[in-house]
Amino acid sequence: MSVTKFEHPLNEKTRIYLRVESLLNTLTSSSSFEIRDHHLLFFRSLFDLLEIFDQIQLKSELAKDLEKQRLTYKSWLNIEGVNQEMLGKILNDIDLVHSSLLSAERFGHSLKEDRFLSTIRQRFNLPGGACCFDLPALHHWLHSSVDEKQADVQRWLGSLEPLKDALSLWLKLTRETGQFRNQQANNGFFQSDAEEANILRLNIPLHYGAYPMISGHKNRFAIKFLDFRTGQAVNQDITFELAVCS
Amino acid sequence: MSVTKFEHPLNEKTRIYLRVESLLNTLTSSSSFEIRDHHLLFFRSLFDLLEIFDQIQLKSELAKDLEKQRLTYKSWLNIEGVNQEMLGKILNDIDLVHSSLLSAERFGHSLKEDRFLSTIRQRFNLPGGACCFDLPALHHWLHSSVDEKQADVQRWLGSLEPLKDALSLWLKLTRETGQFRNQQANNGFFQSDAEEANILRLNIPLHYGAYPMISGHKNRFAIKFLDFRTGQAVNQDITFELAVCS
Repeated sequence: MSVTKFEHPLNEKTRIYLRVESLLNTLTSSSSFEIRDHHLLFFRSLFDLLEIFDQIQLKSELAKDLEKQRLTYKSWLNIEGVNQEMLGKILNDIDLVHSSLLSAERFGHSLKEDRFLSTIRQRFNLPGGACCFDLPALHHWLHSSVDEKQADVQRWLGSLEPLKDALSLWLKLTRETGQFRNQQANNGFFQSDAEEANILRLNIPLHYGAYPMISGHKNRFAIKFLDFRTGQAVNQDITFELAVCS
Repeated sequence: MSVTKFEHPLNEKTRIYLRVESLLNTLTSSSSFEIRDHHLLFFRSLFDLLEIFDQIQLKSELAKDLEKQRLTYKSWLNIEGVNQEMLGKILNDIDLVHSSLLSAERFGHSLKEDRFLSTIRQRFNLPGGACCFDLPALHHWLHSSVDEKQADVQRWLGSLEPLKDALSLWLKLTRETGQFRNQQANNGFFQSDAEEANILRLNIPLHYGAYPMISGHKNRFAIKFLDFRTGQAVNQDITFELAVCS
């Protein structure tokens, strides 16, 4: 059965973490510049990240959240029934990314200092503003050799590695806390309590032709299903899978 | 010899025409949704176009400009030495796109009325705002069958066909008025008079490692070459090809 997978953050910080994850994925997958207009995806994602870095202290937030995860996992040391080998590995992974996170520069610092990136950042958000006459420096750069471009790209992406590693680990461990269970939304509506939850994950059978509108916070949430074609609330029962991750 | 091709508009309207051309190209090349993140390119270009349609009366401007071209070509009818067969074909092409332009809806009208597009347009410009939780309707749409998606895409693109045809023809005829000639920028600087020019086209040998900063208007323009690595003005002579198109 085809399903659509949704994820929904239950607090503002996790919302930003998921956006950053998505931007980092786009950045990586467009970094080969093999496809026409890859550069549009690459630089747009990079500049979106810089904008987010201006808005929140991502590095210290992430360090705190990893520290919280470390304490949780530490509390399971020497508890019977807990796989101690696996636990040791997780604690080791957290230590590694946490310390490389702490020794990293403030996110985006070197990217903001990059003369070329600064030259093109401003105009990039104009509608259609990536034309050669708006951004002649970019146009010239795109004609550089593959090696020259890749050297720049690796330098830019390299400065984001500590963020990527820390964020990936935090999200992986968070997602793993949830178990998918069947749920039913009566008349297209479902609500539930949660305990300090960060992310909801949903698998929704495609055949309902419906998508979820989710509201709530870490301790309580509601899911309303909307019919895609009409935009109106669905009034049939919908069976779906839900994992609550904390 | 590898060259970088630049184009520079000499008035605001042509600047917008070239941006629209570039957006339409991205729209078409990303409309198969075959590559990861094609949807980001597609919808971003579409919404950028809608923003431009709000800013200028593109349809009437383009109709006026095509009419001007028609008058110019008409004045060459029955003049000795002018290929009358080719001229007849051009006049016929202009008539065709001009009349389909005039009978088209106001550009973007049906796109703005589209409920799905309106739903996703607002959030799309948030940094990283194309995540499934920001745009659940988009996320659902992306999971539709290829046929369903292509039906929507063809409807959206179809409404832009008269614009695309008219703009392509006007730009093609405009570009054809210019002949590439060798020019030299002494100490990286070149200036010249022009006659009601719309577009400058430049072929710059890549080995100079320089890109042009162009200023001016339809009757006079200046080109200053900047060193890509330093961002400073070049102080060597640069030989390049230039076509002035009116």
